[in-house]
Amino acid sequence: MKEIKIVIAGARGRMGSEAVKLVEETTHFSLVAVVDHKHEGKSLKDLDGFDVDVPIYTDIDKCFFETSPDVLIDLTTPEIGKIHTKKALLNGVRPVVGTTGFSEDDLAELQELTTEKGIGAIIAPNFAIGAILMMKFSQMAAKYLQDVEIIEQHHDQKLDAPSGTGLKTAEMIAAVREEKQQGHPDEKEILTGARGANYKGIRLHSVRLPGLIAHQEVMFGGDGQTLKIRHDSYNRASFMSGVKLAVENVMKVDLLVYGLENIIE
Amino acid sequence: MKEIKIVIAGARGRMGSEAVKLVEETTHFSLVAVVDHKHEGKSLKDLDGFDVDVPIYTDIDKCFFETSPDVLIDLTTPEIGKIHTKKALLNGVRPVVGTTGFSEDDLAELQELTTEKGIGAIIAPNFAIGAILMMKFSQMAAKYLQDVEIIEQHHDQKLDAPSGTGLKTAEMIAAVREEKQQGHPDEKEILTGARGANYKGIRLHSVRLPGLIAHQEVMFGGDGQTLKIRHDSYNRASFMSGVKLAVENVMKVDLLVYGLENIIE
Amino acid sequence: MKEIKIVIAGARGRMGSEAVKLVEETTHFSLVAVVDHKHEGKSLKDLDGFDVDVPIYTDIDKCFFETSPDVLIDLTTPEIGKIHTKKALLNGVRPVVGTTGFSEDDLAELQELTTEKGIGAIIAPNFAIGAILMMKFSQMAAKYLQDVEIIEQHHDQKLDAPSGTGLKTAEMIAAVREEKQQGHPDEKEILTGARGANYKGIRLHSVRLPGLIAHQEVMFGGDGQTLKIRHDSYNRASFMSGVKLAVENVMKVDLLVYGLENIIE
Amino acid sequence: MKEIKIVIAGARGRMGSEAVKLVEETTHFSLVAVVDHKHEGKSLKDLDGFDVDVPIYTDIDKCFFETSPDVLIDLTTPEIGKIHTKKALLNGVRPVVGTTGFSEDDLAELQELTTEKGIGAIIAPNFAIGAILMMKFSQMAAKYLQDVEIIEQHHDQKLDAPSGTGLKTAEMIAAVREEKQQGHPDEKEILTGARGANYKGIRLHSVRLPGLIAHQEVMFGGDGQTLKIRHDSYNRASFMSGVKLAVENVMKVDLLVYGLENIIE
Repeated sequence: MKEIKIVIAGARGRMGSEAVKLVEETTHFSLVAVVDHKHEGKSLKDLDGFDVDVPIYTDIDKCFFETSPDVLIDLTTPEIGKIHTKKALLNGVRPVVGTTGFSEDDLAELQELTTEKGIGAIIAPNFAIGAILMMKFSQMAAKYLQDVEIIEQHHDQKLDAPSGTGLKTAEMIAAVREEKQQGHPDEKEILTGARGANYKGIRLHSVRLPGLIAHQEVMFGGDGQTLKIRHDSYNRASFMSGVKLAVENVMKVDLLVYGLENIIE
Repeated sequence: MKEIKIVIAGARGRMGSEAVKLVEETTHFSLVAVVDHKHEGKSLKDLDGFDVDVPIYTDIDKCFFETSPDVLIDLTTPEIGKIHTKKALLNGVRPVVGTTGFSEDDLAELQELTTEKGIGAIIAPNFAIGAILMMKFSQMAAKYLQDVEIIEQHHDQKLDAPSGTGLKTAEMIAAVREEKQQGHPDEKEILTGARGANYKGIRLHSVRLPGLIAHQEVMFGGDGQTLKIRHDSYNRASFMSGVKLAVENVMKVDLLVYGLENIIE
Repeated sequence: MKEIKIVIAGARGRMGSEAVKLVEETTHFSLVAVVDHKHEGKSLKDLDGFDVDVPIYTDIDKCFFETSPDVLIDLTTPEIGKIHTKKALLNGVRPVVGTTGFSEDDLAELQELTTEKGIGAIIAPNFAIGAILMMKFSQMAAKYLQDVEIIEQHHDQKLDAPSGTGLKTAEMIAAVREEKQQGHPDEKEILTGARGANYKGIRLHSVRLPGLIAHQEVMFGGDGQTLKIRHDSYNRASFMSGVKLAVENVMKVDLLVYGLENIIE
Repeated sequence: MKEIKIVIAGARGRMGSEAVKLVEETTHFSLVAVVDHKHEGKSLKDLDGFDVDVPIYTDIDKCFFETSPDVLIDLTTPEIGKIHTKKALLNGVRPVVGTTGFSEDDLAELQELTTEKGIGAIIAPNFAIGAILMMKFSQMAAKYLQDVEIIEQHHDQKLDAPSGTGLKTAEMIAAVREEKQQGHPDEKEILTGARGANYKGIRLHSVRLPGLIAHQEVMFGGDGQTLKIRHDSYNRASFMSGVKLAVENVMKVDLLVYGLENIIE
């Protein structure tokens, strides 16, 4: 396989340091530089916790010019991510971006840029390939088994219920099935909340317990059968197979892809 | 093992006909008669769906007098069940009763009768041995892992949420732990009901889907671990191992036992 | 929706009687006749357990000629199913066939017939839509998460291990991934069989317990995450949503479809 | 609650450092010293990763003499653990020991010492309270539901199959039920190993996948029902609630307890 030359922005972050490891461990990936807001002129190996000898740049344009990478992996913040994505495209570098917060207008502008430059770009709010598959399969299943409930389970330090992934899954399912009331028309909650949250007829249940990490089960029911699709995420490493997939795919496309579900076949 | 002579009341009902099958299939059980509100003088094998040749009685006292059974299995209604239970004890027959609806006063009276007569009686609102074990283990676990949520899952024709077993489990757990608020103190429901029902801090979630039968999972969380206890009930046969256990135990005790959890060691 | 006129062969069988119910309950389906090896000239409602007034034919050609159906649902035996399928096509009736046992040659011949006649035919070894989805999703997931084990669970009266669905799933996965050894290269079975059966590196585990019906979990592992796809089949009704789907789809296609997974999008 | 004065041996190990954290975070626990094979005279806070100011001793007798602790938590090696346990008892300090490898003779000798000194000692091969509960409940359930299979699931770097906990669970179940052959007497493995390992009739299945950590499900089947008891261990913190329980209980008993299952009620 042809080697892919990669620059990482946000390497010192928790996702970023995992990405450095991923690139180092993948035979046909090669890390050529990292972009940071400080440490200009140093090597990455000068920093705590790293032993890879690649230059650190604070100026991303200079970095692209001097190292000619194929791909930029950006794991910074939404604000910086937006600027980096645009600069990458302008420099002919394909961006793989893990930050959220792009507006419709931002995406339209980036789409235009990819067309103009004839290169691909991938923006992914979620890199956990298992979670992406769970959502995609749930959407597919909803065409054949219309009754569905979502049970998402997280540690008890989580503030919001339901989780973002839970809501996203419900939205994806609602987009392909007619809205329907589930359960018995006369069902009655003896204790308020027992039947969970209701999103266009889809019921969502949020479990919060110490010990849990991040889990979700999507449960479909039909005559005499149930189908369950479950994703368990145990740690941050779960995002890396998605990053790898994105890097490999961004080399093959010449347009903007928003969401990894769109490169799953 | 010594043979146990048994009379069944309610043999034509759905539970009752399973009980007939159970007694027939158990080597040391022997069916000597059935009690019904009609068909006096006929044999059970004269009725549709049965091929056991035992007499049918409409008068339970006469039945006890003529057949001298050891045990009465009563699977009738709450009203009739009460009368039968008392008459059995008065006749020195040990009752195993599957109906609910006994008041505190009823139970006190029956308790007295068992003492007076020196024989046992077992009343069980639920005969599914797996469900009993689930509830008992949940109560035991709650002493060591205080955070717990209950997810019960039933077919979508069920009217009440949460289920009776779900509530009973929560009550049994609440009886042995200090009331505590679970989840993050600042947690927020983005969609109302996501965090389920709240019984003294224990969260209950009711899933209703076509295809499901009767399932419950009790989930405990602690530092770095979770413990789950799950019961799946697929059909009425699930009650019969509990009936068998009750019949065998009612021969060994000389007092009133309410709830099979009290004969589990 | 346009009404679809249907003939059922094998109506007195267990699957067949469910199919009669399905057709009766579906608004745009209409049962016009049944084909049987006896009872010529009678009405279906003359037979025990049925109350639908449609004619019974022993001659399938005569049936097709007199009732002009759109679709034949065949739930007979492999031998008879083959003959019926061919006759249906020759008469311009679209067959939906639930029997297995077609050889490559049989399928080639039928394919030719569908092309010649310009009408569709669907042959499905398994109509449980949830099982089909489980197998299809497993095949899709295997492209992204290569390590997989299959745990199938059935009642303890089942003779063969692993189950047909378990093996079929392994074959479908093996078809899209490179063969690989799973687990640690130096792993050691302290008790023989602990690591299950091995099909091209995919491990299969067969659980057999009283109480179980028919369940299968396909479990994928990747860095820091697992993805599980589980199907539970509780009774024969689970096949009917697949029959319905097949009838609706056979009207839209003009070729032979083998396996419902090929009409799932 | 009365404060419990604690010495930890093995504080620099992975379990030991968790134990230091536990003692610091528990209101009625107080760390008075640690025992190490080096660093005599230093304070624990002089070592990397610790900020607790307690003295380090290399001589355990001197440590006991000078700090008069109530309890010794020993998380060293089997060899050192044995010596420490004995010395603790001789000095009137109650040991809580997390190492394995005590022989029958060792245990007999320690038992005698506890009686002689009139103080308690707890030796626990496994401190994960959830795993202990799973094993204990499994043993209890086996009296009522005789058919059982064990599915244990670990990361794919594990060498042995089945796991130690899997085997221990099977042994505990086998100790209370009559040996029985499970599954159909004529069942046939189409692929060798499908039915798993066989321990006195109990089937064990070992799943090994990347992503998994340490999980076990014990599955019981009966007429029309199943009961599942599952433990998921996500990280080392899962052991600490067991250590806490042991420390609190060792103060109340005056004999040797081997295995935390014996202090669970």
